[in-house]
Amino acid sequence: MVLLGRGLLAVGRVAFRRPMIVRHLQYDAFVDRHIGPRRLEQQQMLDFIGYKDLDDLTGTNVPNMIKAEKALELPAPLDEYKMLKELEAIAAQNKIYRSYIGMGYYDTIVPAVISRNILQNIGWISQYTPYQAEISQGRLESLLNFQTMIAEMTGLPTTNASLLDEATASAEAVALAARTTKRNKIVVDSFCHPQNLDVIRTRSGPLGIDIEVSDSIEGYAFDDKVAAVVVQYPNTEGRIHQFDELIESAHKNKSLVIMVCDLLSLTILRSPGDLGADIAVGSAQRFGVPLGYGGPHAGFMAVAKHDAKNALGRNIPGRIIGVTKDANGNRALRLALQTREQHIRRDKATSNICTAQALLANMSAMYAVYHGPQRLTEIARGVHKSTAYLAYHLRNAGHEIVHKDYFDTLKIRLKDKAALEETKKRAEEMKMNFRYYEDGDIGVSLDETVKSEDLMDIIYTLNGATEKDVTKLREERWEVACPLIGNSPHSRSSLFLQHPVFNTHQSEQQLVRYMKRLENKDVSLVHSMIPLGSCTMKLNASAELIPITWPTLSSIHPFAPVEQAKGYSRIFGDLEKWLCEITGYDNFSLQPNSGANGEYAGLLAIRNYLIHKGEEQRNICLIPTSAHGTNPASAQMANMKVVVVDSDHHGNINYKDLAAKAEKYSNQLAAIMVTYPSTHGVFESSIRDVCDKVHEHGGQVYLDGANMNAQVGLCRPGDYGSDVSHLNLHKTFCIPHGGGGPGVGPIGVKKHLAPFLPGHSVVPVDGRKVGSVASAPYGSASILAITWAYIRMMGPVGLREASQVAILNANYMAKRLENDYRIVYKDEQGLVAHEFIMDCKPFKKHGIEVVDIAKRLMDYGFHSPTMSWPVHDCLMIEPTESEDKAEMDRLVEALLSIREEIRQVENGSLDKHLNPLKMAPHTLEKVTSDNWNMPYSRELAAFPKPWCTHKAWPTVGRVDDQYGDRNLVCTCPPIESYQ
Amino acid sequence: MVLLGRGLLAVGRVAFRRPMIVRHLQYDAFVDRHIGPRRLEQQQMLDFIGYKDLDDLTGTNVPNMIKAEKALELPAPLDEYKMLKELEAIAAQNKIYRSYIGMGYYDTIVPAVISRNILQNIGWISQYTPYQAEISQGRLESLLNFQTMIAEMTGLPTTNASLLDEATASAEAVALAARTTKRNKIVVDSFCHPQNLDVIRTRSGPLGIDIEVSDSIEGYAFDDKVAAVVVQYPNTEGRIHQFDELIESAHKNKSLVIMVCDLLSLTILRSPGDLGADIAVGSAQRFGVPLGYGGPHAGFMAVAKHDAKNALGRNIPGRIIGVTKDANGNRALRLALQTREQHIRRDKATSNICTAQALLANMSAMYAVYHGPQRLTEIARGVHKSTAYLAYHLRNAGHEIVHKDYFDTLKIRLKDKAALEETKKRAEEMKMNFRYYEDGDIGVSLDETVKSEDLMDIIYTLNGATEKDVTKLREERWEVACPLIGNSPHSRSSLFLQHPVFNTHQSEQQLVRYMKRLENKDVSLVHSMIPLGSCTMKLNASAELIPITWPTLSSIHPFAPVEQAKGYSRIFGDLEKWLCEITGYDNFSLQPNSGANGEYAGLLAIRNYLIHKGEEQRNICLIPTSAHGTNPASAQMANMKVVVVDSDHHGNINYKDLAAKAEKYSNQLAAIMVTYPSTHGVFESSIRDVCDKVHEHGGQVYLDGANMNAQVGLCRPGDYGSDVSHLNLHKTFCIPHGGGGPGVGPIGVKKHLAPFLPGHSVVPVDGRKVGSVASAPYGSASILAITWAYIRMMGPVGLREASQVAILNANYMAKRLENDYRIVYKDEQGLVAHEFIMDCKPFKKHGIEVVDIAKRLMDYGFHSPTMSWPVHDCLMIEPTESEDKAEMDRLVEALLSIREEIRQVENGSLDKHLNPLKMAPHTLEKVTSDNWNMPYSRELAAFPKPWCTHKAWPTVGRVDDQYGDRNLVCTCPPIESYQ
Ligand SMILES: Cc1ncc(COP(=O)(O)O)c(C=O)c1O
Ligand SMILES: Cc1ncc(COP(=O)(O)O)c(C=O)c1O
Ligand SMILES: O=C([O-])O
Repeated sequence: MVLLGRGLLAVGRVAFRRPMIVRHLQYDAFVDRHIGPRRLEQQQMLDFIGYKDLDDLTGTNVPNMIKAEKALELPAPLDEYKMLKELEAIAAQNKIYRSYIGMGYYDTIVPAVISRNILQNIGWISQYTPYQAEISQGRLESLLNFQTMIAEMTGLPTTNASLLDEATASAEAVALAARTTKRNKIVVDSFCHPQNLDVIRTRSGPLGIDIEVSDSIEGYAFDDKVAAVVVQYPNTEGRIHQFDELIESAHKNKSLVIMVCDLLSLTILRSPGDLGADIAVGSAQRFGVPLGYGGPHAGFMAVAKHDAKNALGRNIPGRIIGVTKDANGNRALRLALQTREQHIRRDKATSNICTAQALLANMSAMYAVYHGPQRLTEIARGVHKSTAYLAYHLRNAGHEIVHKDYFDTLKIRLKDKAALEETKKRAEEMKMNFRYYEDGDIGVSLDETVKSEDLMDIIYTLNGATEKDVTKLREERWEVACPLIGNSPHSRSSLFLQHPVFNTHQSEQQLVRYMKRLENKDVSLVHSMIPLGSCTMKLNASAELIPITWPTLSSIHPFAPVEQAKGYSRIFGDLEKWLCEITGYDNFSLQPNSGANGEYAGLLAIRNYLIHKGEEQRNICLIPTSAHGTNPASAQMANMKVVVVDSDHHGNINYKDLAAKAEKYSNQLAAIMVTYPSTHGVFESSIRDVCDKVHEHGGQVYLDGANMNAQVGLCRPGDYGSDVSHLNLHKTFCIPHGGGGPGVGPIGVKKHLAPFLPGHSVVPVDGRKVGSVASAPYGSASILAITWAYIRMMGPVGLREASQVAILNANYMAKRLENDYRIVYKDEQGLVAHEFIMDCKPFKKHGIEVVDIAKRLMDYGFHSPTMSWPVHDCLMIEPTESEDKAEMDRLVEALLSIREEIRQVENGSLDKHLNPLKMAPHTLEKVTSDNWNMPYSRELAAFPKPWCTHKAWPTVGRVDDQYGDRNLVCTCPPIESYQ
Repeated sequence: MVLLGRGLLAVGRVAFRRPMIVRHLQYDAFVDRHIGPRRLEQQQMLDFIGYKDLDDLTGTNVPNMIKAEKALELPAPLDEYKMLKELEAIAAQNKIYRSYIGMGYYDTIVPAVISRNILQNIGWISQYTPYQAEISQGRLESLLNFQTMIAEMTGLPTTNASLLDEATASAEAVALAARTTKRNKIVVDSFCHPQNLDVIRTRSGPLGIDIEVSDSIEGYAFDDKVAAVVVQYPNTEGRIHQFDELIESAHKNKSLVIMVCDLLSLTILRSPGDLGADIAVGSAQRFGVPLGYGGPHAGFMAVAKHDAKNALGRNIPGRIIGVTKDANGNRALRLALQTREQHIRRDKATSNICTAQALLANMSAMYAVYHGPQRLTEIARGVHKSTAYLAYHLRNAGHEIVHKDYFDTLKIRLKDKAALEETKKRAEEMKMNFRYYEDGDIGVSLDETVKSEDLMDIIYTLNGATEKDVTKLREERWEVACPLIGNSPHSRSSLFLQHPVFNTHQSEQQLVRYMKRLENKDVSLVHSMIPLGSCTMKLNASAELIPITWPTLSSIHPFAPVEQAKGYSRIFGDLEKWLCEITGYDNFSLQPNSGANGEYAGLLAIRNYLIHKGEEQRNICLIPTSAHGTNPASAQMANMKVVVVDSDHHGNINYKDLAAKAEKYSNQLAAIMVTYPSTHGVFESSIRDVCDKVHEHGGQVYLDGANMNAQVGLCRPGDYGSDVSHLNLHKTFCIPHGGGGPGVGPIGVKKHLAPFLPGHSVVPVDGRKVGSVASAPYGSASILAITWAYIRMMGPVGLREASQVAILNANYMAKRLENDYRIVYKDEQGLVAHEFIMDCKPFKKHGIEVVDIAKRLMDYGFHSPTMSWPVHDCLMIEPTESEDKAEMDRLVEALLSIREEIRQVENGSLDKHLNPLKMAPHTLEKVTSDNWNMPYSRELAAFPKPWCTHKAWPTVGRVDDQYGDRNLVCTCPPIESYQ
């Protein structure tokens, strides 16, 4: 690039005083699209805060001691057009075979209307977790649909709004069982999918849970040490067991029963609830979510309610959507029972889970809304009938069908074992993937995409020859006896999905309107900035999102032969290399599918490294008070004891306290977990010393990379002393938050920790087979393309500039606000990093709480900043680099105007109770009501600023959290209530 | 399919009493997604209107005489998944070469953010033409941006919101020139693109305009017969002429100058306005709209204002968006000067154009909003520099560059003419398409997608060999002299796109929010039914829309060698065959790119057939009073004289009057144009007699197929006597209306008319080379895939059922409403067809006009039915088959509630003037205002029904049409007004 000075083209009267970059045959600089403020605006803001240019600012901001010494060595940026062409060519290296591997992943038909209007619709994917319920009723309703669906399919009443995947859900169930039974032995059926067994193994060890794997689960003899038994339903070989006795004998011993189940099969199989199981987990993937080479998909969990105390229910991990009422007495939804969660309970939490799989849960829920109970059953019966038909023809050809009770999966023993290689060759020719067991058997799992032609091809492949008469097949197929149709002991008789929502949106017109109505209830990035500190709600660009729905990326089974996934290998390879360069680490694991899961994997690497070194006694994890709740929760899961470190009045780690504690626990010190720049929004100058001190005492440094958005191109954790970090690709690297997930939390490590990164038993990762923390070897593989695209389009200079503008934006806003709100923490130079904390405590004495400000912001059309975290009674603002000056100015104006309203409460011009802050948010219903009885005006309530006319309205009044938690309802109201 | 009776699956308590269709391995029946009412609801509605089943209803409704005798022979339906696979394979037969053909079509980079959020967003594409301005301010603003862009790029102040394409725009300009100068000779530069010349020829003949084609336009000697001269700028060989003298001498002779121009070049070339031209036309395609094998793209026209009367401006064809104010005195936009248009002026209209290219105009306008003046200029300079660089290297290699003044197009005379074949072979190998002139020269046109690598490939192809050093090229390219950069007499100096809208949405975040804000101002099908009679606002399914953005369909130049378009050939072939089967015609032409253009092409076929038969004197076209305005307007353009035929009190054609007039004009009778079912919404039983009578007197029958939605599978125009019809694929066949286009109006004809269907001189159609009515041989080719997908998924049974349910829905609504609103026309059995007319005249005596009802419906959240057409003071409702019962019931409820409000005005409980009807629509601003001073309540104004809480709000109060027409403003306000 050649810089030709400012204002090359004298096109207009409007002065564009920005350095003109002449792009040689380059279409467009993506960085200019990604970054909000134009150069002129950047200059205005720099002038305002008193810095010459971006380098001047960040040169001051980032401590000298840690400054990156050289520019990032990353490929030069491509514009979006070229990037898409390049990525398309890479993706085309993936070979898309028909997948009959099964093992928890099935091809599915994503209804076009859902793909287009949810997955490809920025209005559905760019929200954050619904912390602000009043402007999130749309996806809260959809997530409640998800919960209702899971509760009804499993027959178990209490459930949550998704977990990370089936394997982590299984591990969460194991932990839940151990916790509630206070026992520590778990029996796992050896016929669980291997990845489930693996993650259960990974996660149980540190928790001190003993795993016994049983090869003959049906007759298992329980003793009073067994917390629970875990079975796969149907099992990994496709077999459906008769579990009644097992469950009875478990319960006799006060052991719990955990069933890992297949959602589609539950339409025709007796549900876990019907069978009497206590916990059901699984994946909702085959309900309309693409394979995506492993993810993202929504995991689920549902539990029985054994007693009035609902012990299992109240201990369930993850987010629960619950029904409550709002200030006007209307029904409203919001996150329930948050006191279980890490952000409140920290190391006492039920789980470390934070970001889950909301978007995918919504897709699956909509799939059920679209199909309804009848069509879902029809789909399942279709799949089952095809399987029976296949079994019939294979048996006729002399093969053995190993299990007689199956749903969609056959284990096939070839008539002639020697024919295996030939069969494999034919499968390859037919572009089909089967499961090949070690004993020489072949596994075939069918799904809703299987057409008559496919069945013919499978029969041909396995039998060697067949007349290919598809019409005949169409007729015959209905004649074959099916194990689950007719008089089967396995048949489901209980009803499900009877609520109107699953029975009224089944024409496309109806579904589109339903989805739109929900979408329009929610504030997302399409409306306004979402200044959630620590969440980094930056642009999710269309060009980054387009590839994820390409079949070349979305239609591969995670256990397909790796030779078929060359495109993915290239993407992973690039990403690992680029992320290493960006962070200064030596190796990366892309497996963790959330930030918290990355933390866990990172701490585990530390722990196993220490054990490997013979220092198993090292189990203390130092964690500053300001840490995110996931840090202590993860530490606890990794069998570390949390010792809290204080902060000083700058918001920095209290170095003295740290040194003292490092000293005190010198022999036991395992690690420190520290966020940088700190969650207080400052670049602590002592970071290097902190790292050194911990190392000095034999500990490892875990640097929480959630705030990497302030560092890319400016400094590298790997350079200044950290041993391991997770990155939140769904923050710094542009993966949309999806209203509460998906996320990706890859971890980077220094060389010594590399051997301890997660592996995978089915598809080894860099040769590693153990220690997996997720179902799939590369976690949420498909959305890694988003990050790839972002880095490829930004290039080294653009990425650095993004960090700089993120810092500029935060400092600009802080300075504009500081006269009216105290900025709680700044560094020695008076600067903040990429986010900052505003003190709202002083207003308490006038009766105004931070929540009043948060809700009042909705009336101005804004989503609140992060509330009371990491500092109570404060708001934390993170504008990100993608917000332009005008948008930030509007938010500033709103906050200043609210400050003025607070003053009016102080001085009595507004009532102490009946004021627009306390009454906020104001719904349309309220402000148009004929009975307006507030002492302030409707216009003040509704349109405190002229630009509020564009706002997205809250659709309910302030929600009542207590009421809902006292009366937990986490599914759609029973059908009677509609009649 | 096997019908297994009702309620096969006892899944639920909710009784699904619909015939269960077992689909053999078929995933899903699209027909169930397309049709709104579930079977149970259909039965309820049938019971209500007193019919046993659908066949009973339509068997009564459709006159026996015309009933189809057999089921349609169309392929059995595919579900959306299979359909997409099949269409993907067909589309893959198209070969995507790099296109350097030029000739008015250029590859372009559709910004991903625009593609995703407009073209792929049902919220932007499923609106109708903005007849109801108060709920259309979003796209009205975007179309105003389009007009501003066109006005400023061309330097001519009055413009419109798109025409069909460049060639029809050229022909419209010719007609406009002839009309305003009252002269009838037009001189056309022979170096116009051939397709422009062709359509000018086609359209001028019938209007009595003489076309003189001149090979040396620069020195043309004008005389006082010349209405205008038409030049292409730059011309088809890429040459830029010096037009100052030509324009001066034209003006001396009071002739007008029409410039057909390239939008991108105008960023650096002197604009038509700067040069003194009177009319500029062209295509906005290369502003971010895919090639799409020819369309759809927005044509444009802008005209000079020579005098206060603005003669050209007030005579411009097509829709003009104009600025006005609303009832509250706020700025509002709406369609301006509608009195020029066919729906008011009929055969005196300025054009027959109705549906235009609103969606594509919006895309192009957003492209300009996204890039702004500076980036647009940069793009143009980049293209130009590449062209100059290419010229330099070709000259160096000894080739001749025929014209020295060019923008992006070179005519290349090979050093060695004999090398042509070899060059062509290399081009083929490199997958590049050039233009091959008849004289052996080669044409190369560059565009914004051309990368360094492409330039290297072009140079290699033409020069035979070159070192492929891309980096070197990147450097060198900036050294080469460019004809338009530096001191060129052609250089533009005037400013353009200075308005804030083109200078403030240039980060993606900003643009997304801007587009969303506009989207959310408009009512589209995602909100509620749009019951516009005659407009058929049915479902536009996602699966139908997905293919149009596949590169295999969107990235082909319409003049690419036909061997490269095998996929398209297959789609066209299927469609022609299927449409013939559906209509009973023998041949189809897919070229007309709107219904009106189809009418024109059909009438032209009749006219040329008659001339061919030696009956040129036949020039009378009988048209019923109830006909759509396009009918008489098209007839006039086809040189026919309109004679109006009366209707009887049933709304049928007055057969006696018809017979008398056919008799009277027996010798001159050319045709009748009749809509069936009639625009009055009835199946006239006399239709066969009408056809026979006309034939008896030697006339041809043109059956306007806009109402084909009531006929598909039930009766076929070709069977009951019609000779030619257009279909509105954007009505019956699911192409979305795009807020005012695109449309496709293919025509079907009986065999005798087939030779007179449109041809194309560049790409002959079935051997036909003349008579083209559109720029591209297959018109808006890319969106034909939508119709293909629809028919493929519905199958013969589904299509028929759609017609039946459309009729059921209309009859259900009519019966529910008839006690409160007189249904103006019914057939002898008391039935309506697929739409019906409600009389609102009786309310006039109480001061309530039909417009008051229309506007009041907005308060209920509904788009008004068609207002005062075809019968004054009435509303015409067409529900379509895609609307479910609940939605129709809501609209009924709204209309009954409004009827009650009218009664209250009658009986005085509501004020005569200050009532919710007269004051409608009520904006949010109004109902939340502190100064509510209406004698009725806010709640009555805002939420007359509980379900109104979901409504999309009107964003302005009632617009003032007169004010805007008196003070015509059709561009964004001047920049000063923002400061
Ligand atoms: C500082 C910090 N660490 C860790 C996390 C956890 O990341 P995730 O939500 O992806 O599990 C967050 C998430 O918000 C965070 O802000
Ligand atoms: C009966 C009838 N004929 C013709 C047309 C013209 O079609 P188009 O708008 O596509 O030009 C219409 C359009 O509304 C119509 O309703
Ligand atoms: O989601 C967070 O807790 O940041």
